[in-house]
Amino acid sequence: MPVITKTVQIKSRGENDIIDITNQTTKAVDESKVEDGIITVFISGSTAAVTTIEYEPGLRSDFPKMLSRLAPTDIDYKHNDTWHDGNGHSHVRASLIGPSLTIPFKNGNLMLGTWQQIVLLEMDTRPRERNIIMQIIGE
Amino acid sequence: MPVITKTVQIKSRGENDIIDITNQTTKAVDESKVEDGIITVFISGSTAAVTTIEYEPGLRSDFPKMLSRLAPTDIDYKHNDTWHDGNGHSHVRASLIGPSLTIPFKNGNLMLGTWQQIVLLEMDTRPRERNIIMQIIGE
Amino acid sequence: MPVITKTVQIKSRGENDIIDITNQTTKAVDESKVEDGIITVFISGSTAAVTTIEYEPGLRSDFPKMLSRLAPTDIDYKHNDTWHDGNGHSHVRASLIGPSLTIPFKNGNLMLGTWQQIVLLEMDTRPRERNIIMQIIGE
Repeated sequence: MPVITKTVQIKSRGENDIIDITNQTTKAVDESKVEDGIITVFISGSTAAVTTIEYEPGLRSDFPKMLSRLAPTDIDYKHNDTWHDGNGHSHVRASLIGPSLTIPFKNGNLMLGTWQQIVLLEMDTRPRERNIIMQIIGE
Repeated sequence: MPVITKTVQIKSRGENDIIDITNQTTKAVDESKVEDGIITVFISGSTAAVTTIEYEPGLRSDFPKMLSRLAPTDIDYKHNDTWHDGNGHSHVRASLIGPSLTIPFKNGNLMLGTWQQIVLLEMDTRPRERNIIMQIIGE
Repeated sequence: MPVITKTVQIKSRGENDIIDITNQTTKAVDESKVEDGIITVFISGSTAAVTTIEYEPGLRSDFPKMLSRLAPTDIDYKHNDTWHDGNGHSHVRASLIGPSLTIPFKNGNLMLGTWQQIVLLEMDTRPRERNIIMQIIGE
């Protein structure tokens, strides 16, 4: 059973950018020629996260608004007192959502719902170049 | 090393229904005859999620109450302005929790804690028929 | 392709303890002699969780403060009415974050970011001895 590891580079536009990476994930599965298995989508970094969402403009606004309620930008963060980079809220949001997602596929097809896309959530306060690991295990 | 993929169908009663799917997960591992490995539990869809919880009536009430604080039903969601299906809060809650869970097993036994059950969290506003993917990789 | 399962025991100091388990995870991968694959880090139990974070004192304070906003200790939990163990908030926090994390590795190296550590989040109100499952699948 093969293990295929790929790094996909994505440029984000900074805070609250939500980027659809379903096509890149599908392509990684296609190119692997693996029929059945899992693809692990993992973000290397501590101010971004991955999840699934219905990728449409309304939710691309609603989801960050929820994050702003959970970890507002205008309260004190000890992280900022020490590092002065102003992204304490980015870190706690990213740890809440988590960096990894595991998606099964069968006959080469990701088993997503019709209205379910895989997304990178940029939480950092500035544009970033992100490395997303896509690793396939299967047969 | 085999890959075994199964789709389990579950009917939910709608918003805030929490359904214990530990038995179905255990059965999938048993039937696979795989001894050691992982089972990926993945919900196809963007208004439901999977996690683990101590499955008892108190927490089945406490957990949705927390979700209501994080994403209240009575605030504006851009999603609803466009789609008029009134489930913007369902979508953001589902993306927060996430659609996938990976549980290791050894000697055919899921390595769960005694008070830890695997659950489907229905977030949508109406009863749904859900497809839960259970995929086993191991030896 | 081998499957290697290890249980790592960790003593926590109780509520809001965040414990860096990156070294134990790295060691498990090293000892397995597996080159490419995934390690599943899974907490057996319903009042703890795993995620990644930049492990520094500021965020070790900021992250629990966020959890206190999402699931305060001073509100009613039905769980506590029944079980009188006062840890209803611990349970809902743990289910929100989730018990499993999947980290890919390549050439024996975990594909983490420079400022990204793997952590156990103790949510329970008292010190606990925790069993963390680390399971490697790869080649």
